[in-house]
Amino acid sequence: MHRGKQSIELTNPVYIIGHASVVGSKEGEGPLGKLFDMVGSDDMFGAESWEEAESTLQKDAVYLAVKKAGLNVEDLDLIYAGDLLGQSIASAFGIKEYAIPLMGVFGACSTCGETLLLGSMAVAGGFANKVACVTSSHFASAEKEFRYPLAYGSQRPLSATWTVTGSGAFVLASQQKNGGETEDQCDQQMNACKCGKPDAMIVGGTIGRVVDFGLKDSFNMGACMAPAAADTIFNHFQDFQRTPEDYDKIITGDLGNVGQKILIDLLREKGFDISQKHMDCGMEIFNPDKQDTHAGGSGCGCCASTLSALILRNIKEGEWKRVLFVPTGAWFSKTSYNEGKAVPAIAHAVVIEQV
Amino acid sequence: MHRGKQSIELTNPVYIIGHASVVGSKEGEGPLGKLFDMVGSDDMFGAESWEEAESTLQKDAVYLAVKKAGLNVEDLDLIYAGDLLGQSIASAFGIKEYAIPLMGVFGACSTCGETLLLGSMAVAGGFANKVACVTSSHFASAEKEFRYPLAYGSQRPLSATWTVTGSGAFVLASQQKNGGETEDQCDQQMNACKCGKPDAMIVGGTIGRVVDFGLKDSFNMGACMAPAAADTIFNHFQDFQRTPEDYDKIITGDLGNVGQKILIDLLREKGFDISQKHMDCGMEIFNPDKQDTHAGGSGCGCCASTLSALILRNIKEGEWKRVLFVPTGAWFSKTSYNEGKAVPAIAHAVVIEQV
Repeated sequence: MHRGKQSIELTNPVYIIGHASVVGSKEGEGPLGKLFDMVGSDDMFGAESWEEAESTLQKDAVYLAVKKAGLNVEDLDLIYAGDLLGQSIASAFGIKEYAIPLMGVFGACSTCGETLLLGSMAVAGGFANKVACVTSSHFASAEKEFRYPLAYGSQRPLSATWTVTGSGAFVLASQQKNGGETEDQCDQQMNACKCGKPDAMIVGGTIGRVVDFGLKDSFNMGACMAPAAADTIFNHFQDFQRTPEDYDKIITGDLGNVGQKILIDLLREKGFDISQKHMDCGMEIFNPDKQDTHAGGSGCGCCASTLSALILRNIKEGEWKRVLFVPTGAWFSKTSYNEGKAVPAIAHAVVIEQV
Repeated sequence: MHRGKQSIELTNPVYIIGHASVVGSKEGEGPLGKLFDMVGSDDMFGAESWEEAESTLQKDAVYLAVKKAGLNVEDLDLIYAGDLLGQSIASAFGIKEYAIPLMGVFGACSTCGETLLLGSMAVAGGFANKVACVTSSHFASAEKEFRYPLAYGSQRPLSATWTVTGSGAFVLASQQKNGGETEDQCDQQMNACKCGKPDAMIVGGTIGRVVDFGLKDSFNMGACMAPAAADTIFNHFQDFQRTPEDYDKIITGDLGNVGQKILIDLLREKGFDISQKHMDCGMEIFNPDKQDTHAGGSGCGCCASTLSALILRNIKEGEWKRVLFVPTGAWFSKTSYNEGKAVPAIAHAVVIEQV
């Protein structure tokens, strides 16, 4: 049901019954390296171009997520997919192999949150029984799309983020898994769980609006996106009459360390202190000191792979009971940038709880 | 509810309570010219760039649609928006002015159908009370995004389509209009109806999947998209156990005259003859003999503006009782094209009925 100004509440929760992460070699060397389901030995993933490699990431992530849910791809009624490339080609060329109905989605790096909200609405509304949500990014295809040729070797300021090569896929359903193995085995083999217990559930969310603070620095996306994250989180608290205390973690997508400070400041001005609860996927996925990634990781694949590898694991293990997952996106394009436009942003919030 | 393999059925119909079209000067000179709500005197719409002009198209279309529904923009809970440009900048920069929650959507020229299906699911599922769906295209921004600089003056083969400069917006709700004026007045002033009767209703649809016939000709989008349209229409017939006889019109988005022939042939091979029922928005919007538009109009704005100006008018006037509206999209990007990829396509079908 609709709740408050810009939120939805799922009176019957939607279960995440399978999920998977596939990442590149650099992400595999980072702090979360051992948690990902699949790490590429190089970043081409057997493909002939970076864009095709990104398509492969999505294809593999969906396949693994579906298998971990004890299903086959043909069991899916619908896939929501998105990426950062022009005309979302990573998604279209990746997902076409499966011949499953596709809803293409674009919300820049917030797309993971958007697909989860759309997928939840489709399941909760009874329009689909099994839905997959998948997003991806690839460092090299993103640099080609948005910035310079890699061979140019341009210097990056410290506020810049590093686009994650990765994809995360999530299978949503109104019912629990079909089961098979026991829950004991499940606890031992978290990454290949086939027991009847879903990994987590989505109980609501807040749909973001485009927020434009007039910032134009394409090497400081964190600052561009923090106002949008603050707007969505603030409106989420209003719509649900909650405070940061109601969450074990409030997790943004890819603000990085520059955006994090701004977000905390902006919400403090509005009366909410999230400093003890906040975590940013972009700050978890790399080790900036050792990996030269500056402000953190970014891209559609950053929060998606972190959600699968780290966040859902912690929720399933009971470490966190309720999390506000807030992917953040910056509306940045070569064309708008070259025409002198600012970088507006958006953030969508998803409430994920332990089952 | 979910129906068949890839369809949804709305047991409680979703009403289209307001809609509007805004187009450029060439479209205003075409056969539908007098039916559009607003025709620009030039194609810049007071903006400084073509992309900004396209954003203005969306902004104006939403404003007019909302007003014709007897509402204000603030009454909207949610907007689904999309366009053809990289990172959907026409939508983001256009819709940001309204500060309404935004779901960005990308399905190439099928996006109008995708937004209507997503919007219908949001309303029918009770997740939003009032939703706007808007899509746009602009001849000049599309040429810049996909083909050559306009000044290059390249020759176009006869199979090429002409990207429509236009936008169509639709306001969806579960309830009928608030009313005000009488139905008599409504009949006289079709374009400014304020009576209690909605313009039409959406009762279901079929979500398309990506279909790739391996065609690579960027100047023959009709041929690339026809197999996707055939796939969706065929599966629609299967899922609903219907035939062409159940529809007054089966209306594709922008196949043009080349794609039309292929679609009719493909469906005939599968046992359905739609030749007497088929209409294509791209073939309605221009006069190819006088306007040098070759195979027809195309773009996200083509079927959206035709739906508002022509199709919904005919439905409201009772000429057509039930229409299958099938926007078609081709997954074409500079990058995939330059890498030698084919042009996969998708089509989404929406069942629109007289109230």
